[in-house]
Amino acid sequence: MSSPSDLTDAHRLLSMGRCTASDLIEDALARAHGEAARAFVRHFDAQARSAAFAADRAREAGAPLPSLAGMAISVKDLFDVAGQPTTAGSRVLQGRPAATTDAAAVARLRRAGAALVGHTHMTEFAFSGVGWNPHSPMPANPVTLALDATTPRIPGGSSSGAAVSVATGAAWAALGSDTGGSIRIPAALQGLVGFKCTARRVPLQGCIPLSPTLDTACAITRSVRDAVRMHEVLADRTVARRERPWPLWRLAVPRTLMLDGLEPAVARSFEAALDRLRQAGARIDEIDLPELAELVSLQARCSFAAVESWTWHRDLLATREAEYDPRVAQRIRKGQDVPASDYLTLQQARADWIQRVEARTAGFDALLSPTVPCVAPPIIGLADDDDVFFRTNALLLRNPSVVNLLDGCAITLPCHRPGDWPVGLMLWAGAERDDDLLTLAGAVEAALA
Amino acid sequence: MSSPSDLTDAHRLLSMGRCTASDLIEDALARAHGEAARAFVRHFDAQARSAAFAADRAREAGAPLPSLAGMAISVKDLFDVAGQPTTAGSRVLQGRPAATTDAAAVARLRRAGAALVGHTHMTEFAFSGVGWNPHSPMPANPVTLALDATTPRIPGGSSSGAAVSVATGAAWAALGSDTGGSIRIPAALQGLVGFKCTARRVPLQGCIPLSPTLDTACAITRSVRDAVRMHEVLADRTVARRERPWPLWRLAVPRTLMLDGLEPAVARSFEAALDRLRQAGARIDEIDLPELAELVSLQARCSFAAVESWTWHRDLLATREAEYDPRVAQRIRKGQDVPASDYLTLQQARADWIQRVEARTAGFDALLSPTVPCVAPPIIGLADDDDVFFRTNALLLRNPSVVNLLDGCAITLPCHRPGDWPVGLMLWAGAERDDDLLTLAGAVEAALA
Repeated sequence: MSSPSDLTDAHRLLSMGRCTASDLIEDALARAHGEAARAFVRHFDAQARSAAFAADRAREAGAPLPSLAGMAISVKDLFDVAGQPTTAGSRVLQGRPAATTDAAAVARLRRAGAALVGHTHMTEFAFSGVGWNPHSPMPANPVTLALDATTPRIPGGSSSGAAVSVATGAAWAALGSDTGGSIRIPAALQGLVGFKCTARRVPLQGCIPLSPTLDTACAITRSVRDAVRMHEVLADRTVARRERPWPLWRLAVPRTLMLDGLEPAVARSFEAALDRLRQAGARIDEIDLPELAELVSLQARCSFAAVESWTWHRDLLATREAEYDPRVAQRIRKGQDVPASDYLTLQQARADWIQRVEARTAGFDALLSPTVPCVAPPIIGLADDDDVFFRTNALLLRNPSVVNLLDGCAITLPCHRPGDWPVGLMLWAGAERDDDLLTLAGAVEAALA
Repeated sequence: MSSPSDLTDAHRLLSMGRCTASDLIEDALARAHGEAARAFVRHFDAQARSAAFAADRAREAGAPLPSLAGMAISVKDLFDVAGQPTTAGSRVLQGRPAATTDAAAVARLRRAGAALVGHTHMTEFAFSGVGWNPHSPMPANPVTLALDATTPRIPGGSSSGAAVSVATGAAWAALGSDTGGSIRIPAALQGLVGFKCTARRVPLQGCIPLSPTLDTACAITRSVRDAVRMHEVLADRTVARRERPWPLWRLAVPRTLMLDGLEPAVARSFEAALDRLRQAGARIDEIDLPELAELVSLQARCSFAAVESWTWHRDLLATREAEYDPRVAQRIRKGQDVPASDYLTLQQARADWIQRVEARTAGFDALLSPTVPCVAPPIIGLADDDDVFFRTNALLLRNPSVVNLLDGCAITLPCHRPGDWPVGLMLWAGAERDDDLLTLAGAVEAALA
């Protein structure tokens, strides 16, 4: 049997009896303990094996297999898994008692039969897009390492281990979170698919918050159809796919902000992808979206992440700041002196901004942008130089975070040619346009294949 | 023809051709310019007459009459009425241009045929329960004046003129707002019915905010059936009335907080009302509700009203504070230095508190309390003595504000005997239990009649 191409393919082979869930899980666990070891902070081998065992018994009994039956799924160390501690990549939460119940998203995965393989590595408290964590060594980007073994590059974050677990085959899909790009950045830098749904679609109960206004529970996968499958489980809903011929998709590339300072490799892959879509019949306008230039001034007085994370962390920081990553503590502390009126003013300004962006883009089904303006940067230099670190971080977050502020949805899918540096193409739209976006993403994936 | 008893009765007589809307409106306008003159800051006589005229023409043509056809309705000076300025009882907003469109609630009244008679007097920016306003003389309580002409008493607020307009017959019903009791306090002190629905039921667009977390657009009426009629228009929905025999209503009187320091006249009327309900067959438990004792500490670091009003007013206050009622400015300024994290912590503490109150009262359909612990206090003394003013204000707000924090619904209806001081009986419940509460209120009203 050749190796399944993605979760959906594995599920198909399993349903047909052409492989066993136990064989698949052994392969995944071997990878999780081998090349992906650094992607995990905690392994759940026993429960993964027992879910796979249950899937095999169900199949033998002729029972219908649920959507994720026996399939290796990793969980970001931000979500409670019953019987395990949740530490959010931090030192201060080590020694916490184990969770007594699953987070809502985890419970849905489990109900769909998932074999949870472990808690994945992440930026401390999900607070950066690089993936760096001083407490547990960051896994190098496995995809770029295969292209150039001499220069380890960042995996992207904050769902760093989540993406590595999928890229290495230690999991078919990874549950993560996206507050400003934490799903899409590592997916893009590792040539994977990352779908950030409209935030309210998936409950956040049992997930340690970064910024409840922006936090989204969602997944990294190998393919768009897997993204649909994971979303249907996580959001407990059915995606309505309304396919249409290419000319009926109204698409636009916003020039403002999103194309600034693209690394040549990114610009090349992005332009080539647009060309291929146009050859397939897509009509893609270029538009100005001046509202995107307002984002710096909009957030000049405060940010949701700073204020909301400070509210969660202030008691912990008061006594145990020395145990935090100083770069994370420093960013949380920015919320300390923000007056409530500035926060409420930001809420109102955001609502107004969303209305204006929605109005200007109402004529389009989706916007197309490079997910991040650079390919995965080398790790060297980031650890020791705060300037390089924060500049890189800001660059990684710039494009994806637009969609969180918009309260919208977005999917990144690989648009580079095999052998090139991974580059992500981001399709994005306003709130609750998830289903059209997933439908379009399927067509884009096929056209770029 | 004898005078109609309430809006519903007037609508019935009008439908039967036993009176004309024009006659009714002339009577209302005469009162608005006479005994209720101080209740109004602005008269809309021409548009009121034209709505009445339209109702009469519709009736003559045999057209079905909408719910408020030609009926005198007053509007608190907080809601936009197209063609009129909105000043929220303030001096700083005088000279504002006229509104170009109706507030959402006003538009719904107008669609139901209402004859809008004018903007009513209110506490500046709705910020107190007394009704006092240094810019425009407070109308005395017309009901207590009839009992004792020598001691003018407060109308209650902040919807002071709203209640006076109904008590004097200048309007059948009054649109107002309730953030901590602003509908229920003046209704109780004037022997009227005030229904504060679950806040989200009526849109607040076009209404000057006090505290968007707590603000509710709702109405004062003469009867419970009128409260239903007004709510159906304002919330654009139909109330589902599920009548039941008395023993099937699960009722409770919470001892905690709500019965503290009752004025003897209030205690007597409240107890007598409970007795009459029990004689009618009601089973009424007495319960402890210790969560109500937490409200002071819950709001020790900040209040929604202070933070949210400061956010709205800070630019105006920066340049024109001298034009504010100093007692209002002083309360708004309490929101000035509140850190955003305290505000978010209050939001979370409130959500937790609501859950616990809901859990402890889950076995009851409604709770019964005195709406306010005192009868209308004399006006004398309130103007000059800040201590007396703030103590009175706190006393008036104490019971009703519990329901706003609960995100619940409540109705006050008179429970005193004719000739006694007006005393309100408040029936209250958690969010979205509006329909049962209105059904119960109808039964209570009948039992107390």
